[in-house]
Amino acid sequence: MAKSELVFLPLGGSGEIGMNMNLYGHGPASDRQWIMIDCGVTFGDLTTPGIDLICPDPTYILEERDRLLGLLLTHGHEDHIGAVALLAPELGCPVYATPFTAQLVERKFEEADIDVDLRVIRMGSRFSLGPFDLEYITLTHSIPEPNAIAIRTELANVLHTGDWKIDRTPTLGPETDHAALQVFAEEDVHTIVCDSTNVFSPGESGSEEGVRAALTDLITAQKGRVVVTTFASNVSRVVSICQAAQAADRSICLLGRSMLRIVGAAQAVDLIPSDISFVEPKDAGYLPREHVLYLCTGSQGEPRAALSRLARDDHPELSISEGDTVIFSSKIIPGNEREIFDLQNQLVDLGAQIVTEKDAPIHVSGHPNRDELSQMYDWVKPKHAIPVHGEVRHLEEHAKFARTKGVAKAIAPRNGTMIRLTPGEPEIIDEVPNGRWYLDGNILFPDGSYPVKERRKLGYAGLLSVAVVLDSQCSIAAPIQVFGEGVPRETDDGEDFMALLEEAAEDALERLSRGKRDDDQTVENTVRRTVRTLMNEIWGKRPQVLVQLLRT
Amino acid sequence: MAKSELVFLPLGGSGEIGMNMNLYGHGPASDRQWIMIDCGVTFGDLTTPGIDLICPDPTYILEERDRLLGLLLTHGHEDHIGAVALLAPELGCPVYATPFTAQLVERKFEEADIDVDLRVIRMGSRFSLGPFDLEYITLTHSIPEPNAIAIRTELANVLHTGDWKIDRTPTLGPETDHAALQVFAEEDVHTIVCDSTNVFSPGESGSEEGVRAALTDLITAQKGRVVVTTFASNVSRVVSICQAAQAADRSICLLGRSMLRIVGAAQAVDLIPSDISFVEPKDAGYLPREHVLYLCTGSQGEPRAALSRLARDDHPELSISEGDTVIFSSKIIPGNEREIFDLQNQLVDLGAQIVTEKDAPIHVSGHPNRDELSQMYDWVKPKHAIPVHGEVRHLEEHAKFARTKGVAKAIAPRNGTMIRLTPGEPEIIDEVPNGRWYLDGNILFPDGSYPVKERRKLGYAGLLSVAVVLDSQCSIAAPIQVFGEGVPRETDDGEDFMALLEEAAEDALERLSRGKRDDDQTVENTVRRTVRTLMNEIWGKRPQVLVQLLRT
Repeated sequence: MAKSELVFLPLGGSGEIGMNMNLYGHGPASDRQWIMIDCGVTFGDLTTPGIDLICPDPTYILEERDRLLGLLLTHGHEDHIGAVALLAPELGCPVYATPFTAQLVERKFEEADIDVDLRVIRMGSRFSLGPFDLEYITLTHSIPEPNAIAIRTELANVLHTGDWKIDRTPTLGPETDHAALQVFAEEDVHTIVCDSTNVFSPGESGSEEGVRAALTDLITAQKGRVVVTTFASNVSRVVSICQAAQAADRSICLLGRSMLRIVGAAQAVDLIPSDISFVEPKDAGYLPREHVLYLCTGSQGEPRAALSRLARDDHPELSISEGDTVIFSSKIIPGNEREIFDLQNQLVDLGAQIVTEKDAPIHVSGHPNRDELSQMYDWVKPKHAIPVHGEVRHLEEHAKFARTKGVAKAIAPRNGTMIRLTPGEPEIIDEVPNGRWYLDGNILFPDGSYPVKERRKLGYAGLLSVAVVLDSQCSIAAPIQVFGEGVPRETDDGEDFMALLEEAAEDALERLSRGKRDDDQTVENTVRRTVRTLMNEIWGKRPQVLVQLLRT
Repeated sequence: MAKSELVFLPLGGSGEIGMNMNLYGHGPASDRQWIMIDCGVTFGDLTTPGIDLICPDPTYILEERDRLLGLLLTHGHEDHIGAVALLAPELGCPVYATPFTAQLVERKFEEADIDVDLRVIRMGSRFSLGPFDLEYITLTHSIPEPNAIAIRTELANVLHTGDWKIDRTPTLGPETDHAALQVFAEEDVHTIVCDSTNVFSPGESGSEEGVRAALTDLITAQKGRVVVTTFASNVSRVVSICQAAQAADRSICLLGRSMLRIVGAAQAVDLIPSDISFVEPKDAGYLPREHVLYLCTGSQGEPRAALSRLARDDHPELSISEGDTVIFSSKIIPGNEREIFDLQNQLVDLGAQIVTEKDAPIHVSGHPNRDELSQMYDWVKPKHAIPVHGEVRHLEEHAKFARTKGVAKAIAPRNGTMIRLTPGEPEIIDEVPNGRWYLDGNILFPDGSYPVKERRKLGYAGLLSVAVVLDSQCSIAAPIQVFGEGVPRETDDGEDFMALLEEAAEDALERLSRGKRDDDQTVENTVRRTVRTLMNEIWGKRPQVLVQLLRT
């Protein structure tokens, strides 16, 4: 009989930011039983035109899904749960989540109108799936209910940390359950699979308690209207801001769909203190400027979020003006600098004062800085380390760091790297299909598929569509039509560019013998070459050319 | 007779980054004589698909060009000279530049094959253009030959700083000529028009001398191959890197077109010490790893630059591997984070170690931090201040800062804001046409013109082109053809999407009466609506639709 192994396989989140998807397999290679931990998305940007959501390529695990025992969610951030509604129907296994996370995914299932076997588990739960004995261990992070998962098997024990930090004075929810981590450590932790986000940051990430105090001081000192933006999912931050508003005798008005959605989910599981209430945007406008605080989405400059609408001064309920203060209780996610600075410039142009984490200690990260990583390694005493949740440079740095903490071996994997954890020490044994799937409209396409590639080209030089009608004698039966999109329609001298192209195409066709005009390929190539060449001569660029040849 | 005034008018660079263009006018409003200072570009990004270069809308000054006496260049950075070759022929005035800057623009004129009256002036020159008595005052910056321009007129004196810092120990070229600034101050400086880039940075920006020492230590300590990237135009940095290489007994190989171009220009005006020599890339490959240093372009992750090619491992002359060190003697220009981190991840993936300014003091900014601004105000003692060269938030902060330095009035202008400097104190008197012009292929289009707008839409959802042929009886004379670009061609179930659309369009047309089919608009609208609706039902997105109706 084949040897039983415990393997680890990241399909997303290792070597890139976002869309975390991690698999653990147990048994002989031919007959592994699997669990999946997290199933997240990342968001499209201008490099993926027309794409909002990107998820890991799940091909490998879909082929193994008969032996997929469950999908366990560590917490409710989109990079951990965003693809659940997209993929759960295909995966076909039960989904496990703690109450707040379950609230968030349930809403996704409702929106997608799908039926998924969602099992709500308590914080600190312990249960088995096949050969996996699984214990949720409570950590702290920038969203309620963050969990590590202690995986016990007869072959070895693994700690999968999920996303975490060590907040010694959290303002919502319990502290890090280091007692449970230390109990687990006594049972020998073969490998830690651990968050790498802040491995380049020294010291500690800081506590929400300090943020709450700084926000209270800052908001109390303001005389005009106050607008605060933060990550909606950071419910303890949301509560801190509300409490600071209360301390400053300001009513709170929420702006932005995801703010309302998350606050709703948090209220549904009693995370929002009952003395916090909200005023409707239509009513908030009547309040004196010094007695209102708007809490809104859009800290990353997202163009459709509330704050961007305020900055463009096209929000129906609120106009920013001289004397207002806009507080960014957030960080700049790398890549969003330009959007955020543009947003801040617009707000300054309207007369607002901007306060960011550079001006006051009003934000802390949800991920572990080096001293926190060090503490975790001290608690868990892992024999080996697999850094995940980060770009290549983070994973490699984390692997170096883990070695300084005395692990026997550290492997920085990439998506698709299958690592045999045991027997023996961790070792790369395979690379499986991996990559990104783009949600384009409502169709999932692998990265590299033609629609996005074609749209990038269209973005660069636009398109010409040339329609040619030939009759049964191969004579031109209607004037050739050239339509352009994304290309100049007039030359620099004001001439009708399309007419020039039509004329050139017609001339070129007429120079072809009747016999050659009988051949579709020859006609199409002649027309395409003619219009592209002339376009390039005049414009200096070569657009895509569609030739529509119709024969009557 | 109308009153004589001195006015200032920025057309680029005030309220945005890049493409600096500043105008000074003298005389009565109806008959002003103008000088232009600098004529720069900014670069397109993914928000401007297909656009490489962007320059200020020069409409206003083109209308006044009969009274434009000259274009003065302060220094050779692209955001100050990049549009000279594009616009100088239209402006029709002489262009003034110091020798190194003149080298750079002359090469542009040659490439564009245009004839411009370029007047090379010595550093520290003083000359008159109509009512303007102009003195170039030598400053320090991150390129050779940076100049302020002292503008003396019978109405008032103005200091236009250009880009500057205070480097007390420059490694190439002279120190800041503060004696000249102080002499000018004694003649009463009515207004300073000043660089705002680093107004949010406390202290001083630091000296190139310190960078050279740190680079020497760092490079000497390396055992493997060393690759250094920096801004090619920073010739003193280039020289420092070369000297560090010499100290470490390494031969220097230049990679990247702009590195070769700038070094060539610098050699032409004797800026590169004669003991620095270079090996050809084809020869460098034979040198032992510990005896070679590659100096290359691409610090901002530009995809076509040498470093990006190395990171993708598709450079013909060099492959990065384990043990190599890649040094970024540069900063991250905001907005380029994602590209740079992607590049660094690729390099780490190849086995390279990355060293950036976060790890060692190997970069300093070329712009003044607050203490340097303070020193400049102390030297020049301006009565008024106009912050330029920055985003809105920089200009407003600089205006606040200037007030703390005792100026009577500070105005943060936006592009197109015409400010009467004197008589009296500075005051906004007009807003003139302004904006951005995009170089699309070889045609300049105003921002907002249709080609880029259309291409953004094409990028989002692609395009369908529908060709319909109707005969003289308004019967369908050839099967309707639907071609797609940037759209899915198969449904989720593998059906031929285009065939479905063709069928639906044909059905819809056939349901129209012959009379309605006689009307082009009705036919086109029916077809467009039919294919867009079906596309949206199946795909969830609405592409652009071109309907090509041809009648035989």
